[in-house]
Amino acid sequence: MYDAAIEQLIQHLGKLPGLGPRSARRVVLHLIKRRESLLQPLIRALMEVSEGIQICGQCGNIDTNNPCTICSGPKRDHGTICVVEDVADLWALERTAAYRGLYHVLGGTLSALDGVGPEDLKMPMFLERARDEKVTEVVLALSATVDGQTTAHYIAERLADCDVSVTAIAHGVPVGGELDYLDEGTLSTALRARRPV
Amino acid sequence: MYDAAIEQLIQHLGKLPGLGPRSARRVVLHLIKRRESLLQPLIRALMEVSEGIQICGQCGNIDTNNPCTICSGPKRDHGTICVVEDVADLWALERTAAYRGLYHVLGGTLSALDGVGPEDLKMPMFLERARDEKVTEVVLALSATVDGQTTAHYIAERLADCDVSVTAIAHGVPVGGELDYLDEGTLSTALRARRPV
Repeated sequence: MYDAAIEQLIQHLGKLPGLGPRSARRVVLHLIKRRESLLQPLIRALMEVSEGIQICGQCGNIDTNNPCTICSGPKRDHGTICVVEDVADLWALERTAAYRGLYHVLGGTLSALDGVGPEDLKMPMFLERARDEKVTEVVLALSATVDGQTTAHYIAERLADCDVSVTAIAHGVPVGGELDYLDEGTLSTALRARRPV
Repeated sequence: MYDAAIEQLIQHLGKLPGLGPRSARRVVLHLIKRRESLLQPLIRALMEVSEGIQICGQCGNIDTNNPCTICSGPKRDHGTICVVEDVADLWALERTAAYRGLYHVLGGTLSALDGVGPEDLKMPMFLERARDEKVTEVVLALSATVDGQTTAHYIAERLADCDVSVTAIAHGVPVGGELDYLDEGTLSTALRARRPV
């Protein structure tokens, strides 16, 4: 029979992705044993995020500033917009440090099956943004799924009439990937996209 | 480039057992997207535990009450004390609902190698408690390791002169366990502890 406060904390932690009731119990004990060094700093960090985080009105990123640190970055290339589905994808691209432009978080992909149309995403906002004369390139970094590619085609079509180049990140063999473990789809895509060495 | 507040939260979450930087990022995004339904209730639950939890002065359990809910439980058998190493073990035994006595959390085991003596544990406190005339049985629920068994022997020896029966939980084949997957140590222990059917 646990204490009610502990029981409730286990319940809340158990709802987080990757944590079940067993690991939630482990986390709770770990936190209680380290009240000063871990539990209290964690509470402060959570409160800071809870109170300070907002969605960037321009790109849909999450940040304590609005417009976000990226949108207001003086060193970023404001002429390039990379379109992603989710903030997690934006974070993944930022970790590569290979991209210095701005972003636009759609909040999902178009999906006929799930009834997701352009109006359900931040698509109208993006199309307006992409038509700004300062924007020279739109980089599509969408999933290599049917819905992701449908969304990519939709954007390319809608921007066909304006003076912006639309590109997409390459699909192919992952770095470090062994050919005989790859699925046929990836392999045939990589083969079609072959380039002179 | 993450926001500083988000970065710090990822760092703190990444220190929890079972979570690394990758899963911490996933948890943070999950929390931010569910600020009202998950992040804020989680903060409240953490604060309640942080402010309310104390260590039971009698048995070493953690609880918002002192003495804890178990020690002050009117339906518990106050004549039986189960000795465990850690609060996690106490919780595991409570989940079985097979034990209705009290507990004593030692906070570890005796260990010659790590230089842990009786004074480093809640051992003196326990021995005093076990000598109370109301106590009729001490159940040892310690790990089946060298240190766990050394601790069990130490307790049995120290209580040999007083009127309390010292028992230990059974070692043997786990329920659902298949014989040919079991280690020799468990099997030979189970064989020695055989009982008439």
